[in-house]
Amino acid sequence: MVQTKRIDMQSLVKLYHIETRPPSLGDNTGDLDRLKKVLSGHLRGQNPVVPLQRIAPVAETFRHAGFKGYAVVVHAPGGPQLVDFFAQAPEMLVGMALDLGTTHLEASLVDLLSGKVLARAAVENGQLEFGTDILARIHFAATKVGKQTGLDLLHERVLDSIHTLAVELAEGTGLKPNQIMALCVSGNTTMAHFFLKQNPYYLCREPYIPVVNTPDPFSASELGLDLHPAAIVWVMPSIGSYFGGDLISGIISSGLDQQEETCMLIDVGTNAEVVVGNRDWLIACAGAAGPALEGGVARMGMRAAPGAIEHCTIDPESGRIEYQTIGGAPARGICGSGVIDLVAGLYLARIIDIRGKFRPSQPQAEGRLLQQEDSLAYVVVPAEETELGEPIVLSQLDIDALMRSKAAMYSILATITNQVGVSFHDLRQIYVAGAFGKHISPRQAIVLGMLPDLPLAVYTPLGNSSLAGAELILTDASARERCRDVGAKVTYIELNVNQEFMIRFSGSRFIPHTDHALFPSVPFHGKS
Amino acid sequence: MVQTKRIDMQSLVKLYHIETRPPSLGDNTGDLDRLKKVLSGHLRGQNPVVPLQRIAPVAETFRHAGFKGYAVVVHAPGGPQLVDFFAQAPEMLVGMALDLGTTHLEASLVDLLSGKVLARAAVENGQLEFGTDILARIHFAATKVGKQTGLDLLHERVLDSIHTLAVELAEGTGLKPNQIMALCVSGNTTMAHFFLKQNPYYLCREPYIPVVNTPDPFSASELGLDLHPAAIVWVMPSIGSYFGGDLISGIISSGLDQQEETCMLIDVGTNAEVVVGNRDWLIACAGAAGPALEGGVARMGMRAAPGAIEHCTIDPESGRIEYQTIGGAPARGICGSGVIDLVAGLYLARIIDIRGKFRPSQPQAEGRLLQQEDSLAYVVVPAEETELGEPIVLSQLDIDALMRSKAAMYSILATITNQVGVSFHDLRQIYVAGAFGKHISPRQAIVLGMLPDLPLAVYTPLGNSSLAGAELILTDASARERCRDVGAKVTYIELNVNQEFMIRFSGSRFIPHTDHALFPSVPFHGKS
Repeated sequence: MVQTKRIDMQSLVKLYHIETRPPSLGDNTGDLDRLKKVLSGHLRGQNPVVPLQRIAPVAETFRHAGFKGYAVVVHAPGGPQLVDFFAQAPEMLVGMALDLGTTHLEASLVDLLSGKVLARAAVENGQLEFGTDILARIHFAATKVGKQTGLDLLHERVLDSIHTLAVELAEGTGLKPNQIMALCVSGNTTMAHFFLKQNPYYLCREPYIPVVNTPDPFSASELGLDLHPAAIVWVMPSIGSYFGGDLISGIISSGLDQQEETCMLIDVGTNAEVVVGNRDWLIACAGAAGPALEGGVARMGMRAAPGAIEHCTIDPESGRIEYQTIGGAPARGICGSGVIDLVAGLYLARIIDIRGKFRPSQPQAEGRLLQQEDSLAYVVVPAEETELGEPIVLSQLDIDALMRSKAAMYSILATITNQVGVSFHDLRQIYVAGAFGKHISPRQAIVLGMLPDLPLAVYTPLGNSSLAGAELILTDASARERCRDVGAKVTYIELNVNQEFMIRFSGSRFIPHTDHALFPSVPFHGKS
Repeated sequence: MVQTKRIDMQSLVKLYHIETRPPSLGDNTGDLDRLKKVLSGHLRGQNPVVPLQRIAPVAETFRHAGFKGYAVVVHAPGGPQLVDFFAQAPEMLVGMALDLGTTHLEASLVDLLSGKVLARAAVENGQLEFGTDILARIHFAATKVGKQTGLDLLHERVLDSIHTLAVELAEGTGLKPNQIMALCVSGNTTMAHFFLKQNPYYLCREPYIPVVNTPDPFSASELGLDLHPAAIVWVMPSIGSYFGGDLISGIISSGLDQQEETCMLIDVGTNAEVVVGNRDWLIACAGAAGPALEGGVARMGMRAAPGAIEHCTIDPESGRIEYQTIGGAPARGICGSGVIDLVAGLYLARIIDIRGKFRPSQPQAEGRLLQQEDSLAYVVVPAEETELGEPIVLSQLDIDALMRSKAAMYSILATITNQVGVSFHDLRQIYVAGAFGKHISPRQAIVLGMLPDLPLAVYTPLGNSSLAGAELILTDASARERCRDVGAKVTYIELNVNQEFMIRFSGSRFIPHTDHALFPSVPFHGKS
C-alpha cells in the first residue's frame, strides 16, 4: 500500500474529529458502527477494526460525549484500528520511542500530533544482575529459577525497566503511562527476543537463527505492558542474530537506504555492525569487535558518562598527557573514545610499538609505567587527581584487548567492502552510530588503523540512531514503510565463519597495519 | 476484496502444507519469517500476521518438525493469520457453529477440511436462572451482585454454557476443546451483547440502539473462551436491537439475499422478525409477537420437545379431538404449533367465535369446557392420558394471548409488504425459520389469519437456520462476504412506533380477519 505523503497522515496514532447525528428510530445503527461509519470517511473508505476489549470503552465514551468528539486511530500495517475516543481534543497524544540497549535503555516521549520530542530519559537495564554481557543472559534464559525460567525473569526485568521509563517520561509531561498510545522498540536481536519473551537459544549457536526477525505489531495489553492497553507496539525488525533492529533504526535515521552514492554505517558496541549500500542495495555484516571499544574491558573502562575520560592527547616529544572528562567532572575512568585517543597517543609518542607493546625504555614513558601483578600499566591520571583517589591506568592487557578490537573492526570494514567490490575511497559518507560515534575522534581511530585512512569529513557521527529511528517510526509513515523494505532488502554476510575475515584480521593486529600503504597519513614507527 | 471461488479457499481456517530448507549460514532468516515467507506463496502473496502469543508455539513446532509440516491459517477479513503449526497432517480441523438462543444453545462441530458436520449438541442457556425472558435479563445486567455486575454473571453463564457444548462436541469426536479453531456465533442482538459483555441497557429503550452491530472477529483468548487460544470468533452482525445475527444467518442460509424474485423470511420467537427482499434489496422489521407462539404463555405451553402436543385436529362435526406428541411420548404440554392447530380447530368447530371467545353452548364443546378460577378452559387431554396425571387445558386467557400474537404477526407481515409496495401474492417463497417453521402447519396458521392465505407450497420450513448460517460462515467464504453485505444492505423499519402497524393490528384481532376477503379459503363464521 502506498501511503500518501500528507503530513497529517504521518503518525502511527492519530486523532480524528467526529461529529454525527445521534441515533433515532429512523436511524438505528449501533453506537460503535455509527462511529466507524463516519470515521471510515476520514480513512479513505477503509473500515477501522475495533479490538474486542476496546468496544465497550469506545462506544460508551462516544455515546456520553453526545456522539461527537475525537477518535483515536492506530495506523497499523494491517489497517486502521479504532482504539479510543475522547470527548474533548487532548492537548497531546504521545508515543514512546525506546532504544533497548543491553546495558542501558534510553527513551523519549514524542507528541504524535506535533512530532515534537517532549522528554527523554534513560535507565539501567534491569537484566544486568543476570549477566552484564548478552551471552551470559542467553545462557541464563535457559535456566530454571523456582517456577520461572531465566527467560521469564529477563523478560520481566526488561518490562520493569520500560515501565520505569514510561512513568518517568509520562509524569514529567503531566501524563500517566496509560496515556502512552504507541511504543517503538529498537534494540539488538537478543534484547528484542527478551522483550518478546522468545527463546534466544539458537541466536548464539551456528547458524545463528532468530525465532523471529519481523514481529507483527501488537497491542500493549498482549504483552502486559503498562501503557494504554491498546497502545501499538512496534518492534524494529532484525536481519540476523547479530544484526538487530537498532541497526535498522540507524539505516532509517541516517537515510543510508535513500542515498544515491554508496555510504557506510558503523555501529560499534560489543559487536561491530556494518552496513554498506545505497538506495539500490544494502549489504550488512557483524562481528565481535570486543567490548574494549565500549569501555567494557579496560579495568578502568567505563561507559561514556560524567567523569569518563573522553579525549586525551599525549605530547609526542615530552610525553605530557592532557585529558578531558565528560561533564568536566573529576576523572573516574576511561570510555571507549578515551582509550582510542590514549592508545593512539601512546603509539605516536612511541611508548608502545606497532604491536601495541609497551617500550619501558622510551623517555616519554618515564614515571608513567607501573609494574602491576600481571603486566605493565600506563598511569593516565595519578591517584591525587581522580575521584576515587586511585590512579587511572591502562594496562598491557587492556591495550592487547583494544588491539584485537581494532583489528576486528578494520577487518570487518575491509572484508565487507571487498566482498561488494567497493573501495573505501568510494564511500561518500561513513555514519558512525551510538556513543562510539558521538565521542570518538576519527583521526585517532585512523592512527590506530581501526578506521580507514579517509578525510575526516567522511565520518559523520549519528548519536543514538537507534532511538532516532524509533522516533521516526512513531511520526513518519514513510519511515515505517522503509523499515519493512530495508528488512527485506539487506543482504547479510555471516563473518563468524568467513575465511577472508580471518586472514585480514591477522594483518590488522599492528598499528596502523602491516600494509602501511593503507594508512599514508599515519607516521610509521616500524622497522621499514 | 473479491474472493475467488476456489473450493480450497472456502473455510475460515485452513491448513497449508509447508516444506522449506532448514536455515544455514548462507540463509539466516528467522524461523517464523522463514515459515511466513513460504506460506505467503500459498496465500497469493499476502503476508500472514502472527499474533504475539502464537510466535513461540508456531516457531518452535516448525523448528522441531524439521522446518516442514502444516500451517494453520485463519482467514480473517483483515487478512490471513498464521496461528498454529502441526508436524503431521491432522485428521480433522474443526470449528464450532453456535445458535445462541435465549432459552437453549444449539451447536455443531464442523470439519473445516471436508465441510462435514461431525456432531451436534444442545444445552439450556445457563442464564435462565437470571430471567427466562430477555427483558428480565437486560434489567438484571444492570444490577450489582457482590463485586460483580449482573452483566458479568450473564456473560460468565453464557460462556459456561458454550464451554459445556464445546466439551461435549469435542469429546464426542475424540478431540479436546482447545482443538476447536473457530467459533461462529449466531444469536439475537441481546444474546450477542451478553456474549461480548456489552451493556444491553439501550437495547430495550427507545430508540433501541445496540452498542455494536458488527463486531470485528477476534480470538478466543481475548474473550476467555476455552477453545484454541487463537480460534477465530465470528459473531453474526445484527441490524438492530430486535433484528439479530440469527436473522442474518436465516437470510444467508435460505439464500434470500440471492433470489431473483422477491421472497420473505419469517422467524418467530418471542418476537416475530420478518425480512422481505431479493438479491437487490432487503427490508426488515421486527415486532413483539408475544411468547404465545413459542409455547411460553399458555399455562400448559412448552417448547417443542418430546411430549409436546405438536399437532391436533378437531372434527368440526363431532368435536372429537386427535393429537400427536413429539416423539410419541405421553402428552406433557402444548407447543406453539399445537396451540395454532388447536385454536384453528376450535374455530372451525365453532367452539370459539371470530373473536376467539368460547361458545359454551356449542354442542362440539360438550364435556370439554371447564370453569377455572379466572376463565373457561378447554380440555385438550384428560388427566388420565397425560404424563403428569393432570389434564392439559387451553384457557380463554391462553387463547386471548394467541389472538394478540397472531394479530401482531399478520400485521407485521401486512405492514412490511405494504411499505415496500409488494403484495403477498408477489412472494415466491415464504421461509419460516426455527422450531416454529419446523412444526407449524401453515394451513392452520392461515385459518387463524396469522399467515397470509397463499398456496401451502409457498411456505418453506428452514429448521434451525440460525445454526445453519453459522455453519456456512465456517466453511464458505462467499457466505462470509454475504454476511457483511447483508448487514450493510438491510433497511430496518422500526415497528414499535409504527402507526400503520397499530391500525392493522386492530383489524387482525379476529379469526381470520375483519376483512374476510383477505382469506377466501377460510370458512367465515361471523355475522356477515
